[in-house]
Amino acid sequence: MNIKNKKIHKLVFQIFKKHGLTSEHSKICSDAILNAELVGAHSHGLSRLKMYCERIKEKLIKPNPKIKIKKISQSIAHINADDSIGFVAADLALKIAIKNALKTGIGLVAVKNSNHYGLSGYYAEKAVKKNLITMIYTNAPPAIAPHGALKSLLGTNPICFGVPTGTKVPFILDSSNSMINRGKIRLAKKNNTKLPAGVALDRFGKPTRDPQKALEGIQLPMAGFRGSGLAWMVDILSGLITGSNHAGKVKDPFEDFSGPQNVGHLFFLFKANLFIGDYRKRIKENIKIIKKLPKLKSTKEIFYPGENKYKRFLKNSKKQIKISSAVLKDLKILISD
Amino acid sequence: MNIKNKKIHKLVFQIFKKHGLTSEHSKICSDAILNAELVGAHSHGLSRLKMYCERIKEKLIKPNPKIKIKKISQSIAHINADDSIGFVAADLALKIAIKNALKTGIGLVAVKNSNHYGLSGYYAEKAVKKNLITMIYTNAPPAIAPHGALKSLLGTNPICFGVPTGTKVPFILDSSNSMINRGKIRLAKKNNTKLPAGVALDRFGKPTRDPQKALEGIQLPMAGFRGSGLAWMVDILSGLITGSNHAGKVKDPFEDFSGPQNVGHLFFLFKANLFIGDYRKRIKENIKIIKKLPKLKSTKEIFYPGENKYKRFLKNSKKQIKISSAVLKDLKILISD
Repeated sequence: MNIKNKKIHKLVFQIFKKHGLTSEHSKICSDAILNAELVGAHSHGLSRLKMYCERIKEKLIKPNPKIKIKKISQSIAHINADDSIGFVAADLALKIAIKNALKTGIGLVAVKNSNHYGLSGYYAEKAVKKNLITMIYTNAPPAIAPHGALKSLLGTNPICFGVPTGTKVPFILDSSNSMINRGKIRLAKKNNTKLPAGVALDRFGKPTRDPQKALEGIQLPMAGFRGSGLAWMVDILSGLITGSNHAGKVKDPFEDFSGPQNVGHLFFLFKANLFIGDYRKRIKENIKIIKKLPKLKSTKEIFYPGENKYKRFLKNSKKQIKISSAVLKDLKILISD
Repeated sequence: MNIKNKKIHKLVFQIFKKHGLTSEHSKICSDAILNAELVGAHSHGLSRLKMYCERIKEKLIKPNPKIKIKKISQSIAHINADDSIGFVAADLALKIAIKNALKTGIGLVAVKNSNHYGLSGYYAEKAVKKNLITMIYTNAPPAIAPHGALKSLLGTNPICFGVPTGTKVPFILDSSNSMINRGKIRLAKKNNTKLPAGVALDRFGKPTRDPQKALEGIQLPMAGFRGSGLAWMVDILSGLITGSNHAGKVKDPFEDFSGPQNVGHLFFLFKANLFIGDYRKRIKENIKIIKKLPKLKSTKEIFYPGENKYKRFLKNSKKQIKISSAVLKDLKILISD
């Protein structure tokens, strides 16, 4: 990290400390937030800091949670995060899952009573560095309508999959199940532009490209019934069976201060060389074959999932993180009040 | 099964016996094929019988494979299916995965040197009946173009997820990653109808609704980069890390008789009550909430994945399976020659 970004990191660290987190936990949180900025996921970075601090003040996120770990087997654990900030709960769950996977071949760790933890891909990358195949699920507040419904209920509920590639650039797929996120619709409204076709319906259930009508209506899952089914699957895997909120009950962290979010996570890791020893050679070959395919005219290079993000990370790491005036104002208030 | 369908089952059983499979294996295969017909997946049923028998005759599928099971741990196994017919390899892998999951909480079984095994959902249903959460992956011959490519390479590569619901009707998501399958494009050509928009490109990479141009061009993954990434993930999970063919090398079972298919499968099962005891109550509540949502005008009822298939199964089980004249002709030849 360059000096200017280290300063920002220190500021974020101090803000968390000021809000009652331990130094260890403050570092976990500030590391995750800086990473989100550096990979270009600004919606998961500094712009959320104010929200986290507000939820701490409202006692919906506990700065000093009593996290309980229930060991189920050498491979399996269940964590009650006690309304911890999501970063801390996820960091702990990941560490246990990695330890178990390295020891037994498999690590399966479920988390309940957690909160928004940032980017799934951030955790996947850490596990992949240990030569583990990684599948991570987490649920989220209502954002998309189940197929056939005229009301949002399922979260964007990402599916995250990571695999080592034998190079510095891991294969990390971190894909939400919605066609578009609410932030982009709000931006289109602000900029007075139309939405792409097929991403939203108005409140009567008619397709619309008008951002205002989309905000009053519903966002669609990707690929209709199938995307809806995948988002539902993630709700079951991360919310329902872990003992967390599910079926639309995860609270919106920005808007709903009526109680803790109770987000759930599921981490499933296993050794990439469980079945064959030469997976590195094979994945290099796999990627090479696909990259060499004939391309569409609009395509310069075929990228595997995670490749672009890694490039953005390298590029952004050399520069100072851009902070909008609104976010800068938040940071100043958070560190001083 | 009613008497007429039992007769068809017996015929299929005898055809497999005649082609050198043991009685036990013939039953496994005929059960799977009849099930595909009864759930309405005719493309995975009797219409494939001729192909399986041809591949046996060409020594690409071994009717008496020497399947080797490598036990990796109490939870994990790796199967070398020795070019077995896929049904038999999958049946064995599933049985081991179920046994391991019931004993240790988790079952993870990889299969290499296998062949097309029919419907993933068929196996998921069996595991779900044992109160296991089920994730199954298998790869397939090239059908869809990776995002940005002008050539098909990834298979339809289904993602299959099953969970018990506490009722007779399990939640089984069995979703391919393509917008449309080749069979439907061929049918559109035959019926002189247009394709839906956004499912295929012509050979120059331009969107087309003309089935002939689509056949000469490429089929698109669902949801662009994300569907492409998911299909790629399935290729890695079921093909690459299991020691099977991958990166477009799985052979088309109908068209390519230059060698065995070497399809790979991955079965991951775990106890639904690993983390919480009352998952049945919770999933009933989850489904109830979603079903009660306000609906689109075009929607009478919101279904969860697998519900429609179960209804078709019940309905079709009361009737005789419809066999097209072409398939009937095949069956007569297969039993007599």
